[in-house]
Parts: sequence; C-alpha cells; structure tokens
Amino acid sequence: MEELRSEILIDALNYIKQFRNKVFIVKLGGEVLVDEKVVKSVAQDLIFLNMVGIKTAVVHGGGADITNAMEKFGKKPKFVEGLRVTDKETMDIVEMVLTGKNNTQLVSTISKLGGDPVGLSGKSGHLFEAKKKKQKVDLGLVGEITKVNPAIVQAQIQNNYIPIISPIGIGADGESLNINADTSASELAVSLNASKLILMTAVDGVLDKNGKLIKRLTVPETKKLLDTDVITGGMTPKLKACIHALENGVERTHIIKAGYHALLEEILTVTGTGTMITQKKVIGE
Amino acid sequence: MEELRSEILIDALNYIKQFRNKVFIVKLGGEVLVDEKVVKSVAQDLIFLNMVGIKTAVVHGGGADITNAMEKFGKKPKFVEGLRVTDKETMDIVEMVLTGKNNTQLVSTISKLGGDPVGLSGKSGHLFEAKKKKQKVDLGLVGEITKVNPAIVQAQIQNNYIPIISPIGIGADGESLNINADTSASELAVSLNASKLILMTAVDGVLDKNGKLIKRLTVPETKKLLDTDVITGGMTPKLKACIHALENGVERTHIIKAGYHALLEEILTVTGTGTMITQKKVIGE
Amino acid sequence: MEELRSEILIDALNYIKQFRNKVFIVKLGGEVLVDEKVVKSVAQDLIFLNMVGIKTAVVHGGGADITNAMEKFGKKPKFVEGLRVTDKETMDIVEMVLTGKNNTQLVSTISKLGGDPVGLSGKSGHLFEAKKKKQKVDLGLVGEITKVNPAIVQAQIQNNYIPIISPIGIGADGESLNINADTSASELAVSLNASKLILMTAVDGVLDKNGKLIKRLTVPETKKLLDTDVITGGMTPKLKACIHALENGVERTHIIKAGYHALLEEILTVTGTGTMITQKKVIGE
Amino acid sequence: MEELRSEILIDALNYIKQFRNKVFIVKLGGEVLVDEKVVKSVAQDLIFLNMVGIKTAVVHGGGADITNAMEKFGKKPKFVEGLRVTDKETMDIVEMVLTGKNNTQLVSTISKLGGDPVGLSGKSGHLFEAKKKKQKVDLGLVGEITKVNPAIVQAQIQNNYIPIISPIGIGADGESLNINADTSASELAVSLNASKLILMTAVDGVLDKNGKLIKRLTVPETKKLLDTDVITGGMTPKLKACIHALENGVERTHIIKAGYHALLEEILTVTGTGTMITQKKVIGE
Amino acid sequence: MEELRSEILIDALNYIKQFRNKVFIVKLGGEVLVDEKVVKSVAQDLIFLNMVGIKTAVVHGGGADITNAMEKFGKKPKFVEGLRVTDKETMDIVEMVLTGKNNTQLVSTISKLGGDPVGLSGKSGHLFEAKKKKQKVDLGLVGEITKVNPAIVQAQIQNNYIPIISPIGIGADGESLNINADTSASELAVSLNASKLILMTAVDGVLDKNGKLIKRLTVPETKKLLDTDVITGGMTPKLKACIHALENGVERTHIIKAGYHALLEEILTVTGTGTMITQKKVIGE
Amino acid sequence: MEELRSEILIDALNYIKQFRNKVFIVKLGGEVLVDEKVVKSVAQDLIFLNMVGIKTAVVHGGGADITNAMEKFGKKPKFVEGLRVTDKETMDIVEMVLTGKNNTQLVSTISKLGGDPVGLSGKSGHLFEAKKKKQKVDLGLVGEITKVNPAIVQAQIQNNYIPIISPIGIGADGESLNINADTSASELAVSLNASKLILMTAVDGVLDKNGKLIKRLTVPETKKLLDTDVITGGMTPKLKACIHALENGVERTHIIKAGYHALLEEILTVTGTGTMITQKKVIGE
Repeated sequence: MEELRSEILIDALNYIKQFRNKVFIVKLGGEVLVDEKVVKSVAQDLIFLNMVGIKTAVVHGGGADITNAMEKFGKKPKFVEGLRVTDKETMDIVEMVLTGKNNTQLVSTISKLGGDPVGLSGKSGHLFEAKKKKQKVDLGLVGEITKVNPAIVQAQIQNNYIPIISPIGIGADGESLNINADTSASELAVSLNASKLILMTAVDGVLDKNGKLIKRLTVPETKKLLDTDVITGGMTPKLKACIHALENGVERTHIIKAGYHALLEEILTVTGTGTMITQKKVIGE
Repeated sequence: MEELRSEILIDALNYIKQFRNKVFIVKLGGEVLVDEKVVKSVAQDLIFLNMVGIKTAVVHGGGADITNAMEKFGKKPKFVEGLRVTDKETMDIVEMVLTGKNNTQLVSTISKLGGDPVGLSGKSGHLFEAKKKKQKVDLGLVGEITKVNPAIVQAQIQNNYIPIISPIGIGADGESLNINADTSASELAVSLNASKLILMTAVDGVLDKNGKLIKRLTVPETKKLLDTDVITGGMTPKLKACIHALENGVERTHIIKAGYHALLEEILTVTGTGTMITQKKVIGE
Repeated sequence: MEELRSEILIDALNYIKQFRNKVFIVKLGGEVLVDEKVVKSVAQDLIFLNMVGIKTAVVHGGGADITNAMEKFGKKPKFVEGLRVTDKETMDIVEMVLTGKNNTQLVSTISKLGGDPVGLSGKSGHLFEAKKKKQKVDLGLVGEITKVNPAIVQAQIQNNYIPIISPIGIGADGESLNINADTSASELAVSLNASKLILMTAVDGVLDKNGKLIKRLTVPETKKLLDTDVITGGMTPKLKACIHALENGVERTHIIKAGYHALLEEILTVTGTGTMITQKKVIGE
Repeated sequence: MEELRSEILIDALNYIKQFRNKVFIVKLGGEVLVDEKVVKSVAQDLIFLNMVGIKTAVVHGGGADITNAMEKFGKKPKFVEGLRVTDKETMDIVEMVLTGKNNTQLVSTISKLGGDPVGLSGKSGHLFEAKKKKQKVDLGLVGEITKVNPAIVQAQIQNNYIPIISPIGIGADGESLNINADTSASELAVSLNASKLILMTAVDGVLDKNGKLIKRLTVPETKKLLDTDVITGGMTPKLKACIHALENGVERTHIIKAGYHALLEEILTVTGTGTMITQKKVIGE
Repeated sequence: MEELRSEILIDALNYIKQFRNKVFIVKLGGEVLVDEKVVKSVAQDLIFLNMVGIKTAVVHGGGADITNAMEKFGKKPKFVEGLRVTDKETMDIVEMVLTGKNNTQLVSTISKLGGDPVGLSGKSGHLFEAKKKKQKVDLGLVGEITKVNPAIVQAQIQNNYIPIISPIGIGADGESLNINADTSASELAVSLNASKLILMTAVDGVLDKNGKLIKRLTVPETKKLLDTDVITGGMTPKLKACIHALENGVERTHIIKAGYHALLEEILTVTGTGTMITQKKVIGE
Repeated sequence: MEELRSEILIDALNYIKQFRNKVFIVKLGGEVLVDEKVVKSVAQDLIFLNMVGIKTAVVHGGGADITNAMEKFGKKPKFVEGLRVTDKETMDIVEMVLTGKNNTQLVSTISKLGGDPVGLSGKSGHLFEAKKKKQKVDLGLVGEITKVNPAIVQAQIQNNYIPIISPIGIGADGESLNINADTSASELAVSLNASKLILMTAVDGVLDKNGKLIKRLTVPETKKLLDTDVITGGMTPKLKACIHALENGVERTHIIKAGYHALLEEILTVTGTGTMITQKKVIGE
C-alpha cells in the first residue's frame, strides 16, 4: 500500500508539471449541483488542482432550485413561440438562486473541505458586460456577453483563491441579464488565455449516433457533427462554447461527466474520461 | 453658479485630503435598502469617496425581502422564549436573499452609476469565520464572529473596487451562520484599521430622553447611556459595535440617517448630520 | 445649500472619472503670474486635480520680473534685425528669475494651500535637452528642444507631487538655453502621452476676425487659420504647440483665460471656458 | 484503481496543505548516495515536494567516493591521537569529490527525473562561513560554521529550484574547510527558519538499547539519551544537530532510513517511518 | 603606467565596497562655489561616487552672488544689534540667487561632465519645513528647521540622480525662510540615516590654537573645543552641525578644504585630507 | 601621487559609465588558471567590474588538472582517428575536476579578495542543455549545446553575485556532457544579450602570418582569416565563438592575454590589450 501511494503520487507529478501555473476554467452544470456526493468530489478535485499550482476558476449553472423558487414565488413560466420569457421578477428569482444559493453552497462545500473559495457574481467588477440578446421575440432579460473584464478573477487566482462565478451579466444600466453558463465559461477562458476549458455535465461526453462516447474531436469534426442531427439539446451550446474557446487560443476543451473524481481522472490520466476537443488532431495520445 | 461650483469643490478638498487612502467601513441597514432614492444617493456618495481615494467597503443588512421570501417559501417564524430560531431552511432563505438579492442589487445600482463594486459573501475567502452563538436556548444557525480574514477585502480596495459584503459567517464545517451586520462592520473596521465606521440607518442618530439628537458622544458617555433605558431596540447593538471599534483602533464612528447624500454631508462638513462617537472628547470641533 | 453641494460634487464625478490617472500638462503664461488672486485660484485647481487622481504637471513662463531684473542689473536689451539677443549675462538673469523666483513662488503658493509641489528646472535630470536655435542672425542662448527625458517628471507625478517646471533647456555642454514655454509644455505633453495640454493665458482663447471667441477648432481648421492674418502675436506659437501635441498623440488641447477657477471650469463642464482644439471634429459636445 | 488513485491524491492534500510554502532541509548521508535506486526514489520525492509548493533544500554528505579518490591520488590517511588529519591535498580531494562528483550526480539524477536542481558549494555566496575547529591536536582544514548567509539558497527556493549543497565552509582567507554535513544542514535549517529538518541515513532511526526503533523523542529525552551509552557512532552528531535545530526555531526534526519513497511516506502519513524529535511532546499523534 | 592605473583602481575598491549603497551628504559652502576649477573637480568626484553606487546628495550655500545681486537691486543690508535683517525683498533676492543661480549652475556643471543632477529647492516636497527663528530682535525671514520630509530626496537618489539642494525652508504659510546650509545638511543627513556628512569649505579643517590642522576629533573633544576661543566665525555652526549629526546616527562627519579632488581623496584614502569627527575615538586608523 | 590617483579614477569613469548595468561574459582558459598571480589579478578585475555595476559572469576551462587526475585514476587517453574519446569514466573525472576543483578554486580566490562569487555547473538550472555531438566516429560524452536557460545566471547577476560556470552540459537523460568552454561562453553571451564577450587566454590575441598582434577585426575579415592557414589550434574555436556571438547581438568580442590586470586595461583604455572583433569596422577608435 505504501509503495502504491508513492507511485501514484509520483505518477501524478508528470501531469501536474505540465499544467502548473496554467489556467483552467471549469463549468459545473446545474444538473451536477444536485448530487451532493458529486459536488463534494468536484470540490476536492478543485482544491487539489489549486494546491498543486493549477489556477482554476469555476462557472456554475443553476437548475432545479430556480424552478422550485419560481413556483414558491408563484411565477408561472411564460413562453412566446416556445421560448421562455425572463421578465424582471423572474430575473430577480434567477439571480437570487444562482448567486445566493447555488454559488454560496459551492463556497460552503469547498471551504468545508479546506479550500479557500471566493463567490463572485458575473456582475462584480463588471466581469461579464452584456446586452439583451436580439431575437425575433422579446425574451426579456436574456443577455449575451459584449465584453469580459477578467481583472477581478485574475486577482483572485493570483492570490490562490478559487473563484466561483455565477453566470449573471451586467447591462449598460447596471441591470442583471441571464447569460448562458457554457458561453460565459468559454468567454472567460478566452479572456484569461486558459489552457483548458472543462464542461462538467450529467452525460458521459459527446455521443455518436449509436450512443457511443466519442473520445476525441477536432474543431472541423465538431462543426461537421453540429450539422447532423446527432447532436441535440444542451450539447449544442456546449460544442459551440468549445469551438469558440479553441478558435480563440484555449488549447484543449473537455466535455466530461461529473462522476467520482472525474476532474482529477481527466487531468491526471492519458485516456481521460469524456470527450476532448482540440483545434487539430493530437498526435500520439 | 460657476463660482459656487468651484468654491464647493475647493472646499471639499480640505476634507478629502484628510481622508485620502484611509479606510472607511459603511454599514447600510436593511431598513435603508428599501428606499430606491436613498440607495441611489448612497451609491453616488460611495463612488465619490472611492474616486477621491478614500478606501470604502460596505456591509449591508437584509430586511423586508427576507420576511417576504420566507412567507413565499411557507416558512413560519419559530420563536423560543421570544427569540427567533434560525433552522437550516430559514438560513438558506436568509442567505439567498442577502447574498443573492440585497447584495446584487447594490452591485447593480453602483455599477449603473459608474462605480466598480464587487459583491462578496462574508464566507468568501473565509472573511468572517464564525461559530454558533452560545445561548440558553438553541437558536440554530445564529453565529458570532471568531476571526476576521480581511485579505479578500483588502485586495479589492487596493485595486480600487468597492466591496459590498453580506453579513454571513462561515462555520468550521463550512456552514453558513447568520451574523449581526453592525457587529460584522465593526469587526471588519477593526481588522482593516479603518479610520471611520459609519452606521447608516433610518433614524437621525442617537436620541436623548427628549428625543433630541445627540451630536457627540465619547465611549464613557456611551457606556453610561447604555445603562439607562433611553437606548432601546436596534440602537443597542449599534452603540456596542461603535464602542468595540473605538476600543480597537478605529478613530471615529458615526450613526447617521441615510438621507439625501448624508454620507457626503457627514464627511465633508464640520457639523456632520448624525451622532459622532469617539474615544475621548474631540477638542475644537 | 447642502443638497446643492452634494449635487455639484456628484456632478463633478462624471468628469473626474474620465480623467483619473490621465496626465494633464498645464502651461501658465508669465502674464498670468502677475495676478496673485489668479495664481491662487490656479493653485487650488491644481491641488484639486491632483487630489482626485489627475496627474498634472505645470510649465510656467516668465514675464515682467525678468525685464525688471534686467534693468536692475543694467542689462540693456540688444536687438539684431528686430530680434532679442540672449547673451550669457542675460541668460543668467533669465534663468535666475525663472527658476529662482517665478518657479519658487508657485511652489510657495501651492504649498500654502495644502498641495505638495516640486520645483524643477528643465535642466534637471536632462529633462529638456536642447541646442542653439539655428537662425539667420545669432540670437545667442536661445534654444530649441532636441530631446525630452520625462523620467524625472514621471517619478514626481507617480509619487503624487505636482511638478512645477521652468522652461530652461540644457545644451550638450551643460549650458542653459532659453526655450519657449509653449513649445516645452507641448513637447512634455507628447513625451508623457498626456490627455490634455492646457495653455493658460490672459486672453479668452482664440478669437475670430470679429474678436469673438472660437469655441472649437480642428487641426486642419487651425492650420488654415494660421495662414490668415487673424492670428497675431503670442497666439501663433500657442497654436503651433497645440498642433504639434495633437499630431503626436495628445487628445485635446485648450487655450483658456486664467480667470477665476478657469481650470476646474474647463475640465468639469461640458462647455468649457476657452478654445478647445482637437485632431478631428468632436461629435456630440 | 481509478478511485484509489483519486483517494490517495486527495488524502495527500491534507498533508500538503499543512506544509505549502514551508521550508524543509533534507540531509542525505554519504551512505545513502551509493544506492542508485534509493537516490532515484529520494529524487522523485524531492521533485514532488517542490512541485506541490514545499520549499526543499538538500545538504549531502560524501562517502566511499572520497576514500576511493584518496587512494587513487596516493594519499594515505594520517591520524593524530586517533583523529584524521585533513591537510591541503586531502581537502582538495574531498572538495573535488563532494562538489564535483556527489553533488553533480545528484543534480543529474534530479534533472533526469524532471526536476530543476541547482548545485551549490557551501562556499558560494559565502553560504557557510567557517573557521578552523579548535582542538587539542591540529586536524588541519576541519572547520566549524561561524555564520550562515542563506541569501543564495533563499533565492533558489524562491525561484522554485531545488538547491543541492555540498558541506564545504569558506574561511576568512577564502580557504575551503571540511564541515560536518549534519551540522551544516541543521544550521541552514535554523537560518531559513525551516519547518522540518530531515536527516536521511542508512539505519531505521534512533534505536533503543534493545535495537528497537524509537518513534518519538523530545529534546529533554534526547539529551538524556545522549548521556547513556545507547547512542554510538554517527548517531551522536545527528541527535546534536536535531537538538540545535529544535532549540533555534525548527519545528520538527526526523531521522529516517532512506528507503523506498521514505521521504514521501514520512511527510504524507501520520505514523511516519523513522524517529521524530520535537521540542516537547506532540499531543494526539 | 598601466600597472599603476590598475593598482589605483583596485586599491580604490576597498573603500568603495565599504560605502556602496550608503548615503553621503555633502555640503558645499558658498565660498567654494566661486572657484570654477574647484567646482569642476567636486562635480567629477560626485559623479564618481554616484557611479560606484554611493548615494550622494548636495546641499549648497550662497555667497558673493547674493551680495552682488542685493547691490544691483539697491537693497542695503540692515542690521539690528549687529545681526542682518532679512526682510521680504531681501529674502526674494536670496532665494532667487540660491535656487536660480548657484543651484542651476551646479546642475549645469555636473550635467556637462556627464552626471545626472536634479536641482531642488528645500521647499519642494516640503523638504525643509521651518519656522521663524525666535530671537531677541526680529530678524525677519530667518528660519530654523522644524521637520525634514526626505521622501523627495530619497526618490532621486534611489533613481540614481544626484540631488542638488538649496537651503530654503518652507514656513507654515508657504513662505520662504533663509536657513543655515550647514544645519540643513546635518538635518538631511540625520533624516536619511547617512553614513557620512562632509562639509566642504575654504579652509583645511579645524585648526588648533597654533593654526595646525586637527586630523581627528570626538564629540566630547569637539564640545570642549567649542567652549574655548580657538573656534571662531563660521567654524562654530559647522562643528555644531557635525555634533548634531553624530548624536543622531550619522557615523562620520568631515570638514575638509574643497581642493583638487578633495572629496575622492577624503573617501578613498586612510589619512583623508581634513578633520574627521566621530562619536568616539576610532581605533586603528 | 594624490592627483594622479584622482585623475585615473575620474578617467576610468568615462568607461564605467558606458558599461554600467551591461552584461560581460568572460571566458577564462584552462591555460590561464595555472598561474596563481594571473588568477588573482583577474579576480580583482572581476570584483572591480562587479562593484562599479558591470554585470559579469565567468565561464572557465579546465586543463592540466584534468590530465593529472586522469593519470591518477589510471585512465589512458583513447583516440579514434586522432580525436579523444570521452567515455563515462573519463567524463566523471573531467566533471569532478572542472566543477569540483577549477571552479571551487576560483570561488575561493574571488571570495578571499572580497568578492561574492557563486560557483555553478552548466547543468544547474538546466543552464546548458546539450546533446551528443554527431561525428563520424563516436567520441562518447562530447556534447553540443541545444538550448541555453540563462535564468539561473541572470538571478545571480541581478543579486550582484559573480557567477563562475563550469562548461558541463546536461543531456536529455540528465547525463553530463563535455562541452567546449569558448562555445559555452559565446552561447551564454547571446542568451543574456551581453555587451561584451571576452576570451582570456595565454597568447596576446590573434596574430597575423608574421606573428604580429592584429588589434581590430570585423566579422568578414575574421571569416576570411579562418579560410587561410594563419589560424591554427585553439584559436579557431575562439574566432568561431566570437563570430557566433557577434552575429547574434553581442556588441564586441575580445581575445586577450590574461596578463596583469588585462581585463581592466582592456575595458578602461581606448587601445585595449588584445584583438577586438566587431560586426563592422568601428569608426574613430
């Protein structure tokens, strides 16, 4: 056992060396936050990465809590041509849950396990400047990022904190805008010149038409895949977020299932656990 | 008019010079947050102080929003021997509203007016380490501060952000604890060696038995006052917070009504607008 | 009154924000230095700008004091083809008055009002390297700048001092050379990548052929104007100094009358008080 | 297996956190350097500690190579009253082997395994200032440390290099002096305010009179032990080195057998592998 | 010749090493400034010291130029009970000559020889805060230093400039005050924790009753000497300046004749050229 | 004598000014190390350069000591087609002597004379990454530099140490490789953007076919010379090292005889003492 421990630690070294002082952006989907055991395992992995000198920031999604809170507040979802409308009251609830519950619970979990997280709204320090998304129908306070000011995040990772960021954008009039968490993570990764963007979700990764995990994709392959009907639902924005990151300097992007220590496994093994997307084919892995 | 403007600006200089690069801690009571006009006026004042080089951080309270949200979530207040019990569910709601609503709205207002705020939970960076308050009856998740780690706030004020802090403490197991906002502000002021602690509230200041504003108090006078029955309700913790700050290095503390530009008026005039409490009698003012 | 004060302060914020940490170069004409009340008002304005984070340096001219001192020393002005000849003795007197009187009096005035000025000769730290101006007739020690070494000024403004600079150049052999103050200010502005060059004088600004103040000029318009006979006397070098600054990166140049708090009025109002010259037409002001 | 790996890594975290940015001084006995497999394992451990942010410096001994080289150079050991005499020629050979062979081989091994070591003589940067040891008989160039100048080592550990130091002192006339490696390591630990001094040797640790490993010792216990005849040979200077370190601010000292990953095992487990000596009894371990 | 050069350079090393990064304050008496050859030689020495890393600042006196200028301006010296009265007009002339002529000429000379001087009035950056000297008769604007703010000088020497300072103090109302140059140099030396204060004058040093140079003095010896009538005229304030410096942390003070490279000779030889005063007797020199 | 000293010092200033904060790389040939008096003189010169702010690093060769040691160890030189073969045992001896004797003796000499040297192997900090030199015959562990990592040297010269470097390269597997000292010095000079590369040897410089010293050469002239048979033996790699340095940014290279204070003479005189090679013809010297 003692020998095994040492060997595993020494083996981990080779991967750690490679990523020391690099920046990783991890996106935690709302669907992941519901499983306490998974969250704890992700938190431990984040602390490990932080401790060995990998600069990691987290963008999280929301999820069931939002729906739950909306019901409590008696807000009925409105839809126009099949799209959800986010009016001011809805936005208030969304923000309250994202920044006041999902975010602060992550901060608690990481703190409890010995890490030093800092919860941040995407509005703080004008992190995510945004404007209302132009669409045929007015969807209300749904926004798209117009500029990222990463200084507030950079300051925390330089001081060895783990920033936990809720995907709220700030409009020109200071108003809160609901922005997509995958896109936010991707834009943040680009602005911080990150080495990796890791999207953690509830599925194994990108699946082919037979439902089998695709281990490796290049940007051209991913674009081709997006033109087929294999990709559905929430996977589309994830793939677009990866492409955007890769075309703007991020080295590797990963879509992985938030399973038991999946983050460590992805980073500290050759094979990894989900789908890795890169600009070009990676030779020899 | 032009001449007046210049004279006012030049006159303000004398006060600004005195406080440049000093730290001010402002506590915004929950009762203040409800009046949009007042909040806007406070926000402008905070931006002004920030712009002229006074390092200012804000601790805010909660208020009506919490009661409102608790009703929505169907939580009925429990009392044991007249004291409110904060169970886990209640704490979740309190935190959600404080950090997710009151805090983020302040961030929005200050941003809209051109400032650069950063919202922070008192849990972030282990800012307010706390433990459950020992009391005869178990009040649940009501805490008292055991240690302040001001590094996270210091970093923001050094980078010229305006930190907006919700009064949530973090327990040894990462759990959230409801802590008193006046006390939090006072402890933060001490840990940052602040020049001023300013408690903004809905009343004019400390009133004597005839209901008349007391303009100046010393610590001994304040202690004597606390022994009488003149001081009631929320004023007691405020006075104790002031005494604690003054006995630990803060130079001056103020209890003022959050009226129109009251913060600027307090700082930029000789007379000020509320009650100023100091260690000893201030000669010549 | 209280409300007015706060409003004026808050209103000033919008302009201050825009210029914080920017560099302004102010040239004070010798004709301005004679009026004690004006000098005091300029000094207060400089302190205000300094206090709110605008990095300001002053180049001053000489004036009546020089003529006066020359008379005392029994030096009669020599002219060759209508141009004043600056022999060694004359130069000694010029420098003595500029650096020893005009400069030190500004230092006294600003200090008295609570600012922290540093008087500097243009020779110090090789600030203005110069050579004798080539002209048909030998005018003696009249120089033109060959190189600006702004490090000595930069160090002072970084340390929040207000540098007050006398327009003396240093030749290759260490000799003092009389250099034009407008040109010196313009060259300094360029070397420090200043946002504004403000020439303060005794007239309202650039006047048109009817003697009416021209509020706005572009570089092309100014060049055209210089070709007419509207511009006479000391205004020609001022306009050339503005053009030089604007063509080398300075954003805006101003020629204003050194009246009551004119500097603050120029900076903190939309309309300003004199003539503003920019590269291109400024839209929407 | 995957789960085990993650668990081991996460488990290691708890120890790593405790020692991050602390300084460890490791002394590698000459007897350890002969076993290539052991040296490789120590090298890997050093790299691991370095990578996770523990600042580690090594002082090494000499050994068989010195005897071997002396024979080659035809130097016969001289003894006066049973003590070895180090004349100039002998010292030259000792230094040549220590700094030129033992040291550079460690540098090679660590480099090969991916670390970034810097070989240093104790003379460089006046690291170990020394004088001839006063003894009844003149033993020649045997020295004792008079002053440690740790700046040269501090610079390397701050830059994340692993300093490898040969125990040569520098006399007032620049001459080389043979100094004891255990003492050198202890003095270096004190001068760098190290958390741990770890002496790696060929035996299991301190043994009691029955030859059984003593797991824990306090300084008073160690002093008592030194007065008995249980401690013999090379263990005496090691224990004295530990006492000196502990009495001058080093928190813990360890004497361990340089077995397979013994360094990692010692640091990353509760029980450790050899003898731990502390100032006072450690409660609860 | 080549050998000699090298030997002299190497020999100088021993002295340079001793004083590198130390601060020297040199006072140049007005009587010294009149001899161009001497000034050039002093300037070269200052540049040499600066170049080899000795941080040197100069305080200069005035002299013949002032008398000359006063005559030109038709100011007749007024005396009350044998003491010169400095009215406002006189002060203006004194300051104009000191800061505008003596100072700027030193700047020119040092610049010409390749150094990088910065001329400073003692008023700049509130360097010498002063008040009117209390005396039986009102002497007008004669001041004594109340506080030294050395930051402005420190900034220049850190940036490797050579500060040249005119002995003008600044009163509470910004007014200029005539302060003694020896005292100013002494106070500056104390505030900068200088190693040496060197007063350069026209005489060989302190002379005994037979007119013979006294090479070494201690503070007690100097005090005793001041009680005799051996010391007369300008030597009294010089000795007092030395005593003040020595009693406040300056290591050595020197009174030397400003002869050919006297500064270098004083510093780079054992014997020196004038009188050296120290706290206690210096053994072995 | 006093006057001469000052004049010489002042004269040296002009050269010192030119080179302050510049980097010089000095290569000391093994043939130079044998003469104790010469080594002492070089050491003094190095300390002088260091003291006046010229950043100097030394690469030294080996020499007689290696042959001597090899004999002692019974290693007979093997030659294949006239070239020496460096097997593992030979390499061990070479490294032991270079790093353990030649290097440490230089460290001692410089320390004794008051300097602060740091001995470094070319392996430390991966300074000289190397690979086996490809040649027709396998010469064993003879290497050529593939990459220079000058950070370790830069850190020492920034901290005012004098780095003394032995020309050992480190292979991909951490193995030691024997690399040419002239080439090493040249590569180091390029990587540090040095101003001068100075090769110190036993001959006067480059000699023409009549054995007369050539004082000046340009790169084209040197290349032409290499095509003739005038250049023989060790001079060829020296000239190639100079050409490589000059073609990669080093300003001047010198080949000089390591005579009495030759380094100072070369640098502090117009004529210098050996051969200076530059990119192009130097006008006016």
